[in-house]
Amino acid sequence: MKLYYFPASGNAHKVRLLLSMLQLPHELVVPTDGAHKQAEFLAMNPFGQVPVLVDGDVVVRDSQAILVYLAARYGGPAWWPQDAARLGAVQAWLSTAANEVAHGPALLRMHRKFGRTIDVEAATQRSLSLLQLLDTHLRDQPWLLAGDQPSIADLAIYPYIALAPEGGLDLTPFVHLTGWIARLQSLPGHVDMPGLWHPLDKA
Amino acid sequence: MKLYYFPASGNAHKVRLLLSMLQLPHELVVPTDGAHKQAEFLAMNPFGQVPVLVDGDVVVRDSQAILVYLAARYGGPAWWPQDAARLGAVQAWLSTAANEVAHGPALLRMHRKFGRTIDVEAATQRSLSLLQLLDTHLRDQPWLLAGDQPSIADLAIYPYIALAPEGGLDLTPFVHLTGWIARLQSLPGHVDMPGLWHPLDKA
Repeated sequence: MKLYYFPASGNAHKVRLLLSMLQLPHELVVPTDGAHKQAEFLAMNPFGQVPVLVDGDVVVRDSQAILVYLAARYGGPAWWPQDAARLGAVQAWLSTAANEVAHGPALLRMHRKFGRTIDVEAATQRSLSLLQLLDTHLRDQPWLLAGDQPSIADLAIYPYIALAPEGGLDLTPFVHLTGWIARLQSLPGHVDMPGLWHPLDKA
Repeated sequence: MKLYYFPASGNAHKVRLLLSMLQLPHELVVPTDGAHKQAEFLAMNPFGQVPVLVDGDVVVRDSQAILVYLAARYGGPAWWPQDAARLGAVQAWLSTAANEVAHGPALLRMHRKFGRTIDVEAATQRSLSLLQLLDTHLRDQPWLLAGDQPSIADLAIYPYIALAPEGGLDLTPFVHLTGWIARLQSLPGHVDMPGLWHPLDKA
């Protein structure tokens, strides 16, 4: 299969993590010269954004959607629960990834790293609320969902949180969140990307 | 089961639509006096937002997540596909609902109807791009996913699109989108809410 991505995209990185953890052979393709805004790419994703996954005759746009597709098709029960309550819990965090994470830490990074004009105060406030909420949520459990196994919810939330220092956010006060980042980075198949904060290296 | 909601919430309305279409008996509860920002409610949803669904000992936050939960638990194959490619296609639109819809038409409505301070120009631009994209997507197909049946993707996108005129957006130029709104409003079990635009009444 083929993953269209940019090396600096935290959204694409979610998918790279799952592809690696599931040990799925794949080819990485970087759209160049604005190809992601041209007809051929727009036919795969009218939003003109990476990531896009092509697996045979299946084309999937959107990072959360690709996680769902890969988990449901290749992940088995460890990555794709059949239980409705757990599916709902996964979805709640996928929505958080698409909403609060995308318009919080991911937006601040877009501003600081790529110069995009944003409402910095609003994005900062949204980010700090989110970091606090995640930190509290992870105080008594190792992963976002109950139980001792990570899920695609963790993979969907993780990249832009671990990239948050590139947007000027300090993660060190959030000790439970920091522990979760370290656990994720210790998982077999974890893939690095430039800019990811490594709490275990902080000393 | 119990749905915590506000009558003016398009997010809660997504859930009311599916509860009605699946003919699931339920009780509607409106948090009063800021109860949704207090401890008891925050224990169900730390984001302090409606909707929240309580079904026996299962508590689900987030409108998209509640759609997934209800579809997976009660919807049968008509509402919850087993096919990974279709699950991925559903998820792509659930992400769009949580991202572009929430930060486009829903935000403009929040501004015009409830006085929230926002970047009007950015939200308008995002909204118009989204409306155009949806209109094009629905040119050759009746629903957001391929096939002749609606899915939870349609329910997730619909309320804030049909409420867009309350945010100052004119939907009449988007004829395919308008046809889709009319089709949704003709489905058995469709529930109305104040502010929803009814294209069939426009004459």
